[in-house]
Amino acid sequence: MLRIYGDIQSGNCYKVKLLCLLLDIQHEWVHMDIVAGDTRNELFLQKNPNAKVPVISLDSGRNLWESNAILNYLAEGSPLLPQDPLQRATILQWQFFEQYSHEPYIAVARYINKYLGLPAERADEYHAKQAGGHKALAVMEQHLAICPYFVGEAMTIADISLYAYTRVAHEGGFDLSAYPGINRWFARIEAQPKFQSMQQLLIADGGY
Amino acid sequence: MLRIYGDIQSGNCYKVKLLCLLLDIQHEWVHMDIVAGDTRNELFLQKNPNAKVPVISLDSGRNLWESNAILNYLAEGSPLLPQDPLQRATILQWQFFEQYSHEPYIAVARYINKYLGLPAERADEYHAKQAGGHKALAVMEQHLAICPYFVGEAMTIADISLYAYTRVAHEGGFDLSAYPGINRWFARIEAQPKFQSMQQLLIADGGY
Repeated sequence: MLRIYGDIQSGNCYKVKLLCLLLDIQHEWVHMDIVAGDTRNELFLQKNPNAKVPVISLDSGRNLWESNAILNYLAEGSPLLPQDPLQRATILQWQFFEQYSHEPYIAVARYINKYLGLPAERADEYHAKQAGGHKALAVMEQHLAICPYFVGEAMTIADISLYAYTRVAHEGGFDLSAYPGINRWFARIEAQPKFQSMQQLLIADGGY
Repeated sequence: MLRIYGDIQSGNCYKVKLLCLLLDIQHEWVHMDIVAGDTRNELFLQKNPNAKVPVISLDSGRNLWESNAILNYLAEGSPLLPQDPLQRATILQWQFFEQYSHEPYIAVARYINKYLGLPAERADEYHAKQAGGHKALAVMEQHLAICPYFVGEAMTIADISLYAYTRVAHEGGFDLSAYPGINRWFARIEAQPKFQSMQQLLIADGGY
């Protein structure tokens, strides 16, 4: 069975969990405590030498890492990853935007605040992340002001990629009330059959 | 005809140029001066609201941005993007690694040093980039110590993505002499028919 190594509070890991829920992909979830160092032990480094979650292990023993690469692999053949070449490339465009222009600001600010408790020595870094985060949110808002989803007329894995950390951006100090398009898009995603939020999954798991 | 907006000194843009050379893809290259602000004018923002190069414009008028998304689009059907699903996902894995764990250190250090002339107010940031860059290089070296390319037994777009900024990493202060696997891999890529280096392209273009 597909095995997923991750921490559901990490947006990158939640992306993979949400995809599995939406597509009914059976899997075993192996909880990894990032702060405690689970990603830096020798056994895990054999799976991902870059020491990050999520990682998936296939029945063949092969491992795949990087959340957005995993989404592309697991969604193949489903409506969440259409066959049209330009649509597929545009999904990748938004996923690379997410990893380069969105996650390093919004997810890192959230990590410093939520996981580390905003320690004094990282306060400057935390505050410096706000402008870049709002710049990424503005690019998203401009798109969502006129389009229901990021690519085409239906939800794709591009939406999953951008939803994960945007939905919890408030935990990184980002006020989303000025982004009505993003809020409407949240509601569209959360209305999908079998959708579960990060919070629902945490509660179901005993709220570790 | 395919139109590419870029600056050949930017590794992200050079990736697209190199792919076009290797695959004989006819195109018009529109030079963009990033430091002069060419990516922030209104006309360009209509092509890419995220204000970055490279961007490609198709005959249909559609635009596509993010270098690695462009590589996936243009390489479809060629030997540089194999059909096997796990190989394709592994190519994406290395491309996301490049954008998240490599480019923000190596390319940004190079930008601060080469484009901006290492100004005093960015010296701390420049020095702080060195550790992350060497961490990424170590992950690459570990792989290339036993494998000829990043995915499978032949060159793919994963190699193009990682080659672009690694080859000019010395311009960001990274000494590559301690990475023999990376140096052997450079030679393999540079032996490809129709290969041209960033430097060769700059000279051919009058060395702007």
